Amino acid sequence: MSSMDWELLDERRVLEASIFAISKVRARSERSGREHAFDILAAPDWVNVIALTDAGRAVLIRQYRHGTREVTIEIPGGQVDPGETPLEAARRELDEETGYRSAHWEQIGAVDPNPAFQTNTTYTFLARDARPAGVQHLDDNEEIEVEELPLDDVPALFAAGQIRHALVMCAFFHLALRGGFVLGGS
Amino acid sequence: MSSMDWELLDERRVLEASIFAISKVRARSERSGREHAFDILAAPDWVNVIALTDAGRAVLIRQYRHGTREVTIEIPGGQVDPGETPLEAARRELDEETGYRSAHWEQIGAVDPNPAFQTNTTYTFLARDARPAGVQHLDDNEEIEVEELPLDDVPALFAAGQIRHALVMCAFFHLALRGGFVLGGS
Repeated sequence: MSSMDWELLDERRVLEASIFAISKVRARSERSGREHAFDILAAPDWVNVIALTDAGRAVLIRQYRHGTREVTIEIPGGQVDPGETPLEAARRELDEETGYRSAHWEQIGAVDPNPAFQTNTTYTFLARDARPAGVQHLDDNEEIEVEELPLDDVPALFAAGQIRHALVMCAFFHLALRGGFVLGGS
Repeated sequence: MSSMDWELLDERRVLEASIFAISKVRARSERSGREHAFDILAAPDWVNVIALTDAGRAVLIRQYRHGTREVTIEIPGGQVDPGETPLEAARRELDEETGYRSAHWEQIGAVDPNPAFQTNTTYTFLARDARPAGVQHLDDNEEIEVEELPLDDVPALFAAGQIRHALVMCAFFHLALRGGFVLGGS
């Protein structure tokens, strides 16, 4: 089987936005020799956090989202800032968005949000024995409400379409892969 | 509990790319009254397809992806073209990318790829009794290899990080929610 790789010939930044940048790239197929142009979205890596209390309740957040223009139910998360590890970003986002903290952290998975045109990876962390330890520290443009829900009730939120964020779904997929969450077994 | 909605004040298109467009929006929080600017990626809705043969094998594809600059393993999919329904797009993408067809189609889920800044939705379809029925019809910039794998072997590909596309993971999450795929039950 011949190579499926493409050689990057040129990359030109065409837009710097607040949370991502857009580039035009030209690449050449090693298989066909042909050149094509592609549009790429570059962003820092992202993290999200399944925080579980000692009673087995998941920490969920509600906020208005400007992409879909509606209030969503999600788990805490955000971008990895310069100089941070993904774990440090996950701890910070949980603390800032919910005021919860945990002493028991574990990375449980990684996905690429969209390899077709996005450069980055989302890392998912599990934080056990999470508990309220302070107040939210929100950015000036963030308004977030926090609620706990039994982990066992989460599949019904997905089935009913009440959680629709793909990267939140992936976080619980990772948890299921590890045996911490059962999907489809009933 | 007061409203969490924001009022859209202004939207300005700043970039038209091949598969998406970028807008700057200004919105006002109904809760705080403050105005903020946000960067939004508008794209057509997307579809992806879990195609299963009558022997219970899943139809997977390999291709080079310019976002992450590597060859990925995914399921067939693409964008809903103007005038198409999501189902029509799913049938077309399966046929174009793999040459497989099916007479038994069902929508099994929908997710928003990233409500924070993306406007669109991804619809997942299950195509049963899929079989090779022709040849691929690829765009000039597409090179796709097709392979069948037993559905039961798919969880191991996720666990090993060999499938990393978030929207592919969501497709199998939907299948598991419907009982067609077991995760975490062993």
